[in-house]
Amino acid sequence: MSIFLRNLIVRYHALLILSFILVPSISLNAENGYDLWLRYSYINDSEIRENYSQYFNKINISGESETLVVIKNELLRASKGMFNKKVLWENDHLKAKLIIVNKENYPKQLEKNVPQDWASIGEEGFSIKYVKINDNYKIIIAGNSEIGLLYGTFELLKQMQMQNDLSRLNIIESPKTDIRLLNHWDNLDRTVERGYAGFSIWNWHKLPEYIDPRYEDYARANASIGINGTVLTNVNANALVLEPRYIEKVKALADVFRPYGIKVYLTARFSAPIEIGGLETADPLDENVKNWWATKTAEIYKEIPDFGGFLVKANSEGQPGPQNYGRNHADGANMLADAVAPFGGVIMWRAFVYSEHDPTDRAKQAYSEFVPYDGQFRDNVIIQVKNGAIDFQPREPFHPMFGAMPKTPLMMEFQITQEYLGFSTHMVFLPKLYEEVLKADTYREGEGSTVAKVIDGSLHNKSITGMAGVSNVGTDINWTGHPFAQANWYGYGRLAWNPYLSAEEIAEEWLKLTFSTNPNFLDTMIPMLMESREAVVNYMTPLGLHHLMATGHHYGPGPWVNDLSRPEWNPTYYHKADKEGIGFNRSETGTNAVSQYEETVAKNFNEPATTPEKLLLWFHHLSWDYKMKDGNILWDALALKYQEGVNQVKKMISTWEQMKPYIDEERFKEVKMLLSIQLKEAKWWRDASLSYFQEFSGKPIPNGVPKPGKTLEEYKSMTYPYAPGIRPRW
Amino acid sequence: MSIFLRNLIVRYHALLILSFILVPSISLNAENGYDLWLRYSYINDSEIRENYSQYFNKINISGESETLVVIKNELLRASKGMFNKKVLWENDHLKAKLIIVNKENYPKQLEKNVPQDWASIGEEGFSIKYVKINDNYKIIIAGNSEIGLLYGTFELLKQMQMQNDLSRLNIIESPKTDIRLLNHWDNLDRTVERGYAGFSIWNWHKLPEYIDPRYEDYARANASIGINGTVLTNVNANALVLEPRYIEKVKALADVFRPYGIKVYLTARFSAPIEIGGLETADPLDENVKNWWATKTAEIYKEIPDFGGFLVKANSEGQPGPQNYGRNHADGANMLADAVAPFGGVIMWRAFVYSEHDPTDRAKQAYSEFVPYDGQFRDNVIIQVKNGAIDFQPREPFHPMFGAMPKTPLMMEFQITQEYLGFSTHMVFLPKLYEEVLKADTYREGEGSTVAKVIDGSLHNKSITGMAGVSNVGTDINWTGHPFAQANWYGYGRLAWNPYLSAEEIAEEWLKLTFSTNPNFLDTMIPMLMESREAVVNYMTPLGLHHLMATGHHYGPGPWVNDLSRPEWNPTYYHKADKEGIGFNRSETGTNAVSQYEETVAKNFNEPATTPEKLLLWFHHLSWDYKMKDGNILWDALALKYQEGVNQVKKMISTWEQMKPYIDEERFKEVKMLLSIQLKEAKWWRDASLSYFQEFSGKPIPNGVPKPGKTLEEYKSMTYPYAPGIRPRW
Repeated sequence: MSIFLRNLIVRYHALLILSFILVPSISLNAENGYDLWLRYSYINDSEIRENYSQYFNKINISGESETLVVIKNELLRASKGMFNKKVLWENDHLKAKLIIVNKENYPKQLEKNVPQDWASIGEEGFSIKYVKINDNYKIIIAGNSEIGLLYGTFELLKQMQMQNDLSRLNIIESPKTDIRLLNHWDNLDRTVERGYAGFSIWNWHKLPEYIDPRYEDYARANASIGINGTVLTNVNANALVLEPRYIEKVKALADVFRPYGIKVYLTARFSAPIEIGGLETADPLDENVKNWWATKTAEIYKEIPDFGGFLVKANSEGQPGPQNYGRNHADGANMLADAVAPFGGVIMWRAFVYSEHDPTDRAKQAYSEFVPYDGQFRDNVIIQVKNGAIDFQPREPFHPMFGAMPKTPLMMEFQITQEYLGFSTHMVFLPKLYEEVLKADTYREGEGSTVAKVIDGSLHNKSITGMAGVSNVGTDINWTGHPFAQANWYGYGRLAWNPYLSAEEIAEEWLKLTFSTNPNFLDTMIPMLMESREAVVNYMTPLGLHHLMATGHHYGPGPWVNDLSRPEWNPTYYHKADKEGIGFNRSETGTNAVSQYEETVAKNFNEPATTPEKLLLWFHHLSWDYKMKDGNILWDALALKYQEGVNQVKKMISTWEQMKPYIDEERFKEVKMLLSIQLKEAKWWRDASLSYFQEFSGKPIPNGVPKPGKTLEEYKSMTYPYAPGIRPRW
Repeated sequence: MSIFLRNLIVRYHALLILSFILVPSISLNAENGYDLWLRYSYINDSEIRENYSQYFNKINISGESETLVVIKNELLRASKGMFNKKVLWENDHLKAKLIIVNKENYPKQLEKNVPQDWASIGEEGFSIKYVKINDNYKIIIAGNSEIGLLYGTFELLKQMQMQNDLSRLNIIESPKTDIRLLNHWDNLDRTVERGYAGFSIWNWHKLPEYIDPRYEDYARANASIGINGTVLTNVNANALVLEPRYIEKVKALADVFRPYGIKVYLTARFSAPIEIGGLETADPLDENVKNWWATKTAEIYKEIPDFGGFLVKANSEGQPGPQNYGRNHADGANMLADAVAPFGGVIMWRAFVYSEHDPTDRAKQAYSEFVPYDGQFRDNVIIQVKNGAIDFQPREPFHPMFGAMPKTPLMMEFQITQEYLGFSTHMVFLPKLYEEVLKADTYREGEGSTVAKVIDGSLHNKSITGMAGVSNVGTDINWTGHPFAQANWYGYGRLAWNPYLSAEEIAEEWLKLTFSTNPNFLDTMIPMLMESREAVVNYMTPLGLHHLMATGHHYGPGPWVNDLSRPEWNPTYYHKADKEGIGFNRSETGTNAVSQYEETVAKNFNEPATTPEKLLLWFHHLSWDYKMKDGNILWDALALKYQEGVNQVKKMISTWEQMKPYIDEERFKEVKMLLSIQLKEAKWWRDASLSYFQEFSGKPIPNGVPKPGKTLEEYKSMTYPYAPGIRPRW
């Protein structure tokens, strides 16, 4: 059936559905979002439903491992949902309609009829083939490992949920990175630093005996998008998690996650040997310290043989590290790497470091501290680098470290939780941000040396590759607070699997799985998602501005803040607005941060004229009268950008209103309420920011932009003592 | 149909159901407990289903108020669940099968055929009658108010869910107390003091714009059991909630709850006039202070015209109060009462006070501080008294204040959250505890002067009556952490409505609504619930022992704790174990706390021989060799009681195993895991407590009780830095 014809049918059915109050498979549970993109909703189109369900009448799957049980359970669940039917298992692979089989068990006869190229499938990959054997059409999911089969099963179920034509299936997929992680900034008291979806889903108190059913659903969701590891604890680490009483709890989680191909990792507090080990030092070159970590690591691996390793934030924002003892990052990372190496573990060492004692541009410090050590890290160390050089701002240029350490594995750290992007009340489709970074060209090996090629290791042939996403998951029933924030978890996972995917195809997949395959809905909502990230940039930090948020909780605007103890914590450090103009001069005439980029890139960033306007004030301090490409002066352009952001949110609201026919009432209402908060806050950002900057520019607010509703003093006096996500006080 | 016949049918159908994998109405959402006792599960018995569903084919309900919308939505939801059918509305009450109508709209013709005694129905009550008019059987729900109709609707739906015979319906119900409250000890940062089910469901950050769907489900659950008020904030109060930025959030919640007959209340921090009002004093007799509260109250009522009033914890555990200014509790309560009186508000003033400067028995202090002021409180003040004189222990004698203040309204404060009863991992059916207290005889007006009669106002004809339950509700998907802790919320609400209900009938109702109407299940589980409270008393604090828990978080045993700054915070203050014996001498030869009870009661409690053994050590310090009624010496009896508690949990586990056929897999597994924690902790309590007490008794642990697995020092060294529910640090 052609896509066009199918779309017509879908449209027709959408109309039909609307005329009924009850659908065949009903649930008292409202659309509460708990099921994420694994909703398996009943397929109303009987033709499609019958076509799909035939495969569930004869499934051949052999073996009894935990992962195979997981696969079978997922098939049962999907069949119940999509077809309201049981699954029938078929022992004879000749009679089977769906065969799920690994290399080891691949039947001789199949090998003859449907040969597989096992090498190209890879260790975690899979193939899905629609084939004809003896006049019988079948689908075969094959993989080298059972985890590959699990991924393949999820892919087939995704194809069905998207109502794709199965007869076209001929897929070979394998992940382009080795380590695909969520980082949870979760504390042992269940607060989540920068968490906006409730509290930590890890119920430490009830572990290890009580296994919250949510743990398994968390594993299902992650496995379905290819995530294969989770760092359970905050990078601002607590040494107690390394004590036996917590290790047994971590083990319980590892046991739940293992069948899903997910390893657990922990954050290692560098001073743990002192805090829980009774040593007097944590010097990485001290023999007692080395022994302590070796023993501690062995203790963990005894309980969790596939423990992933440690993530470390050292000598950053008050965290202890090797520099406390006059050692460098390589000394610290290598000491830990030696401890985990015998067990196959890795050390992920964060490059997010900056010092109040370093008077240079904060944006330059990570590069300066790490690049000189290129090649000096152990093989099982990977440096975890945030996408930009400051801190997860709505827009940053790509981090200059990408491509600059050819001999050292670098992994990407994206933030999924919206610390600087409106918490969980703003609809912002982050895959657009991730895509922008991944497609950025470092030029390190000539044109086309994209960040994606650094991340998948293809640019410099890295021994380990990986991506980390700071989780936006919490105890909220819908996991992420905002129903659309689920898309950021989903999209992150997809890009960790394949950094070359486009944001647009991710948007389409996610919308189909989560809401509707109706083409009217998709045609409207995909562009809305794609624009949503630019909207938040516009109403918060347009034209390359950054780090303008209020202190501590980071909720709302605070461009006026100038009284914090460390200079680089103040927004004024970043925008440098004065009577003359605004922006941070990072060109050769300024801090020369541009020099950390490859020459071609540096040259472009060095001149206002060749700097993309969306990054203009990141690199340049420019007069309020600076002429923009469209002829506006900078002040007017800035004000108009703020207004554009507000307008974009207004448009999102009217678009959403039009989507009412395609969405369940519950989520429609929820998103509508959230959009109204987003609009209120977009205006707040615009008005507070322009009120403040106007003090310097002395220019009138241009036509088309309303006057702020409050005085600057009023904006400055607003406080939010219990805004969520702040770091606990210990 | 006879009950016997119906039970037979139910049994038969239970068998049938087990042989199918899919039931007609399936849901991908597992039995996650979110629906509480409002599950409306599909009725598999077609005879019963058809009998019930006929009433939903012709429902007559007139009017368009918010409460009627709520009623209609509940009927829609119930019909969808129980029958998988739509509801049909019938305008003609002659043709209707179910009529829901208030006095105002009660049709003339109905009045003739089915007269109602509107007076006996009361303001919030309802009647449900099964009647025959013109050869037509109908059910009529009538009430004076629409809230009464809502309660009546929930009652009818309850009858259906319990699969009762509707042809016997002839119910007149009205609540026996005026104020039926949940008290949330929820903080503005969403931590919950003594909360063990996650965090606060009040998402202050997203209010007022974002109305979490959970708020409505919370209101439904409460209305279904007759709760008509909620105190949103912690008694350890934060003045900020009285600021306009929070009042608008409180208003948003009040707007959600209003259609369900639920008023909101707040806790008033006594020092708020200083903290947020800029005054220099909070002296209740100061005119500025009075004015401040009057203005603040008017501000609240402007937004929330039906605001309930304030709950106040004053001069207790560090909270400010009138005594800071040399005033008494009546001065403080009356000042606030005057502020809310013009708007019909009430002040609930807590009697939970004790002072480190008062060297007398802590158990005596509340009585001493309040009873002398009997008759001196304003009409709209009600004193909120905990069930016992210490603090929500597994067992306490009833509070001596009950019955001792004939001229002052007293309301009961029960704790639903299990601060001292195993958090949310122990299965303890609390209605048994509540029943014990309510049935206790104060003898204040002769035999039969039960606490229930104090609470419903019948003993002394009180102007206001009420009951408060400290909520066990949190963000956990199942609301209460432990699936069985839902029973305590349910049972509390039922007893607030009618303090004369028996724990056993509550257990039966709740089990039917929440799990199964299968008689085999009920016959086994009702006794298990009834015994569960005695089990926790036995393994934690048998024979009248109390306040033996660890410090701060109150998790686990800490009878040895003796180093806290205030003497009455130390467990040693309460058990007074020494070489001679154990127990707190509150008889005439001791603190004479017994004298606070009426003479008959006091006389019984004054002598070990006439003191019930379950309260023995509450009132008496007795030799380790004291002979118990069964001939055992006290030390052996104590040890055997601890063991009995452990044995009871073991029995609960084996009983639960037998219930597997009657329960969904999800909840079966969850409860099984929780019971295993309960058993571990029961043993911990037994072993740690006996290890410690043995140091004093010097006697061997008797036969039948195993030796502790650890040394006393090991038990003492156990710490739980992140145990849930601790008070936040500000």
